Amino acid sequence: MTGTKSRAAAGKADRTIAEWNGIFVALTTPFDDSGALSPTRAEENVKKYNKTALAGYLVLGSTGECITLTDRESLSMLETAAAAADPSKIVIAGTARESTAATIEFTNACAQAGARAALVRAPAYFKSKMTVEALRRHFLEVADKSRIPVLLYNIPRNTGLNLDPRLVIELASHPNIAGIKESGGNMSMLGEIGREVAPAFRYFLGAASVLLPGLVMGACGGILAVANAVPDLACRVFDSFHRGDLADARREQLALIQWNRILSEKHGVAGVKYAQDLLGYYGGPPRPPLLPLGEDARAEITSLVAGNGRITG
Amino acid sequence: MTGTKSRAAAGKADRTIAEWNGIFVALTTPFDDSGALSPTRAEENVKKYNKTALAGYLVLGSTGECITLTDRESLSMLETAAAAADPSKIVIAGTARESTAATIEFTNACAQAGARAALVRAPAYFKSKMTVEALRRHFLEVADKSRIPVLLYNIPRNTGLNLDPRLVIELASHPNIAGIKESGGNMSMLGEIGREVAPAFRYFLGAASVLLPGLVMGACGGILAVANAVPDLACRVFDSFHRGDLADARREQLALIQWNRILSEKHGVAGVKYAQDLLGYYGGPPRPPLLPLGEDARAEITSLVAGNGRITG
Amino acid sequence: MTGTKSRAAAGKADRTIAEWNGIFVALTTPFDDSGALSPTRAEENVKKYNKTALAGYLVLGSTGECITLTDRESLSMLETAAAAADPSKIVIAGTARESTAATIEFTNACAQAGARAALVRAPAYFKSKMTVEALRRHFLEVADKSRIPVLLYNIPRNTGLNLDPRLVIELASHPNIAGIKESGGNMSMLGEIGREVAPAFRYFLGAASVLLPGLVMGACGGILAVANAVPDLACRVFDSFHRGDLADARREQLALIQWNRILSEKHGVAGVKYAQDLLGYYGGPPRPPLLPLGEDARAEITSLVAGNGRITG
Amino acid sequence: MTGTKSRAAAGKADRTIAEWNGIFVALTTPFDDSGALSPTRAEENVKKYNKTALAGYLVLGSTGECITLTDRESLSMLETAAAAADPSKIVIAGTARESTAATIEFTNACAQAGARAALVRAPAYFKSKMTVEALRRHFLEVADKSRIPVLLYNIPRNTGLNLDPRLVIELASHPNIAGIKESGGNMSMLGEIGREVAPAFRYFLGAASVLLPGLVMGACGGILAVANAVPDLACRVFDSFHRGDLADARREQLALIQWNRILSEKHGVAGVKYAQDLLGYYGGPPRPPLLPLGEDARAEITSLVAGNGRITG
Repeated sequence: MTGTKSRAAAGKADRTIAEWNGIFVALTTPFDDSGALSPTRAEENVKKYNKTALAGYLVLGSTGECITLTDRESLSMLETAAAAADPSKIVIAGTARESTAATIEFTNACAQAGARAALVRAPAYFKSKMTVEALRRHFLEVADKSRIPVLLYNIPRNTGLNLDPRLVIELASHPNIAGIKESGGNMSMLGEIGREVAPAFRYFLGAASVLLPGLVMGACGGILAVANAVPDLACRVFDSFHRGDLADARREQLALIQWNRILSEKHGVAGVKYAQDLLGYYGGPPRPPLLPLGEDARAEITSLVAGNGRITG
Repeated sequence: MTGTKSRAAAGKADRTIAEWNGIFVALTTPFDDSGALSPTRAEENVKKYNKTALAGYLVLGSTGECITLTDRESLSMLETAAAAADPSKIVIAGTARESTAATIEFTNACAQAGARAALVRAPAYFKSKMTVEALRRHFLEVADKSRIPVLLYNIPRNTGLNLDPRLVIELASHPNIAGIKESGGNMSMLGEIGREVAPAFRYFLGAASVLLPGLVMGACGGILAVANAVPDLACRVFDSFHRGDLADARREQLALIQWNRILSEKHGVAGVKYAQDLLGYYGGPPRPPLLPLGEDARAEITSLVAGNGRITG
Repeated sequence: MTGTKSRAAAGKADRTIAEWNGIFVALTTPFDDSGALSPTRAEENVKKYNKTALAGYLVLGSTGECITLTDRESLSMLETAAAAADPSKIVIAGTARESTAATIEFTNACAQAGARAALVRAPAYFKSKMTVEALRRHFLEVADKSRIPVLLYNIPRNTGLNLDPRLVIELASHPNIAGIKESGGNMSMLGEIGREVAPAFRYFLGAASVLLPGLVMGACGGILAVANAVPDLACRVFDSFHRGDLADARREQLALIQWNRILSEKHGVAGVKYAQDLLGYYGGPPRPPLLPLGEDARAEITSLVAGNGRITG
Repeated sequence: MTGTKSRAAAGKADRTIAEWNGIFVALTTPFDDSGALSPTRAEENVKKYNKTALAGYLVLGSTGECITLTDRESLSMLETAAAAADPSKIVIAGTARESTAATIEFTNACAQAGARAALVRAPAYFKSKMTVEALRRHFLEVADKSRIPVLLYNIPRNTGLNLDPRLVIELASHPNIAGIKESGGNMSMLGEIGREVAPAFRYFLGAASVLLPGLVMGACGGILAVANAVPDLACRVFDSFHRGDLADARREQLALIQWNRILSEKHGVAGVKYAQDLLGYYGGPPRPPLLPLGEDARAEITSLVAGNGRITG
């Protein structure tokens, strides 16, 4: 699925999607102390990330607390990020809604607001009815009617659903389904899908804990929450691997796992945002019902950040 | 939690919520063939249900496909049902959103549109972060700011979360948290909660399969999807139990279980709607990604309806 | 499934299994301080339980820590209990093994050692292969070759498997499959099975939390861990229900739920055994890897026992 | 955790356990048509595997249907394999029992019967009580009293339990706990553990689907069911990786994934055994309740084996 040897930084925005690769950050959405969306803070963050080797930005992902944003806020955040993004950076938007029609409508609104591709997770409220057939029809209809390429999104931790690899392989033949972000950390799924889809199909890892193993198995990059805190470290794993330096890549991956475990896995969005606050970005508070971090969690992250030099090797 | 011996029909709308009891139907939301909300069909259905012994209507519940409705559609459906409802029938609205603030805002919009109480399920996208503390703060803030009484809503099948009985008991002491709809069929939870909350706390069963067992253990009634198809049968279980005729109640409950298993559990919203079509109500198509029924499912439901006389005894 | 109005005490041992009903205790297995099986303690316990209204004894159940006993210990425990049991008490043995052949062999060894019926849970190590077809063949072969009647045993908490109600209904027609112990607390399963099996099929509740609801729905009795601590209370629920006094039955059931929640659900076998120690039976230590209770747990159970008068009403 | 660059074949039996690496086969246990253990067939199989580059044999693992074997059969199978094994091959035995004492006793019996190390999975019947503390005491006591080194065994698919990585890290400091076989395919766990344990700690992959990713992250080898069918292919992945030829390793890994998906994941022990029958080993029937393969499954495996040349590239 890769074939390309290009560096993370080389994810030029004028490439076709079949050439995209490297590390994307799943951007947090900044709220001010009153809980309102802060486009100013979003713009500042993006301009800082513009200076990194990141290939681009996922706006309105799970880490972007998309689930708590109104449509108006969502489009404002997307427009802000798209305007602030360096031309070399690719902007992707999370566009899933629970109904097929609403997903299509919002996907096309995001296309107009600057998204180059749409990341679409499975509807999940009626879990027991989301059969392979129901999901097939859903994704095919979205793909048919979306004006931008669609990336499937597998995130069982949040949806309680796992996309069937055989369905993914089937959907991969649709001309407007360009790839997948797989956040379950499922290397077996990657192997099974990787064997059978065209090389153009983009397989992005959503779980930073398996970035290097996934690259080894042919993934083209990652779309990662932890990259809000340590974009350079994530890019270094990608670069070391493509440079053929497995020993460096492994050392960096082990450091990335520690960041990921404490920020994404243990403390979630609130943890990622707090790390941003400590590292020169704007994190700010999560939106309720997500709770702000308690004292112990803040201390743990402060200590993680303080050990930065050692950890990132 | 009951104490009352009144019949299902006696759920007069001028009662305080602490006196509510009996069977509520979790109304389906009618869409026309183009997929648009049909207020006309909604009005017709409600006028038919007005003639039954139902205590009232839950609008915008899971069976109401609330998850696929826009805010505008939701309020239109609620206003239609509230206007069509007989004055003796109580109207409750499902008002949950994934953010605390949005839940409060929509709850109060529903209060204005005619809802007498709000049914609020737990936010569930960030499952691993929905700790007891996060849910406590969420429900308390919603209860503090809602202009109508709040009923908690436990529906693990759809949310992947189970409300902790100890949290429910704690929340029950809030003056604006009036009860719960428990759709997990968890009799143990009912027993544990029933022991410790004030008699005024309303415990509604959401799982028709355990209606009679729940009434025996002190539940005040049910809010049931299957009542779209067989409102009279559901009401008869309630009446037979309160009349002290356990043998009748058990026979009716066994019939209700069969309806519930085929309609709600096996075929879901599409099944309930198809049964409505066969039984003189308007069901119509579900909204994608929910699929319309296949031929086998339609035949199974047709046969169930044909055997109606036998099954409902 | 009941039809009978007899009192718990009336589960005479000379009845055919189709007439069995009432409350059975799922006996703990006593170990001395060195960890060895203590037949003396087992005998003393059984002689005390002989004076209660219990219908009989389940030996070698989950609560009996059957999983940690050698075959020799198992048969010793069974022989001891069978010899000590009053002639009016029925003795059932848990006889499941992971292989079909071993289950048959051990079932017949238990028949010889005094068991009147065998309780057989599903093999569960190869969970994903335990299809309906695999379990059908397993149970049919065991039933064909067992010299005593077989009771199916559904305990998803321990096995990670849930018996399909349609399979139970099918198996119920085998002449040597006499009933089921259902420990999942699943009232919906009871309703579905109860509709379709012959009245002779014995449906025993394994979850004390739903004893009364289950009796209302037609179960013939319970086989309960908590009855090690409060045999009389469990029997009173059964008697009050059959006497037609639902108000008493509900009050007793609510008390039983509290005992069950703290002993069986929260603290498990170690909790049940500690309560036995406080209540004049021999509990003793559980066998590792089960841990003895910590101080907090002991205090909680001591307090529960001290409040006995109030709780058991 | 590796550091070593040695080839799979180099797992000489005179090495200390801290030097073990490479591919082990999780041997099936051969039964004849009457269902009896066939030591003759076991011996023949081992002698064939002696000619491969396999590092050694796991006897009495999950694939070895250990759960259905009597102690006598288990020791017979182990003795047979140990006697037949080439001196250069290492023999490990699965020795877990549900009680701590029985695990110790059987582990030492296996030591006497020729096992060089013991693979011990967590007791799992009392799942909800298998807390970190309970498992810590269990494994520490087993390790203290075992005469051979202990390898922890994580197999959530069968046990319904997942070993906590922090507990594994803690246990890794015990002088007699030498490593782990992790069959959940959890690369994140590997990364977390790999960061913090001594290089001598052996991390074996139990999921063939992630063999190469795991080697990249530092695992020292695999203990694999699929190696019963394709020992050479599994060894080639290991060798290509250590030779530094990632492109070959990836191609071989993709082939291995297909074998693993059809044999281990889809058809289980019966599938592995049928493939052995087709490939010149003795597979024979699984022991009930495992079912023999149906016609479709046999055809699928026949076709897989026929395409062998292409698939193994």
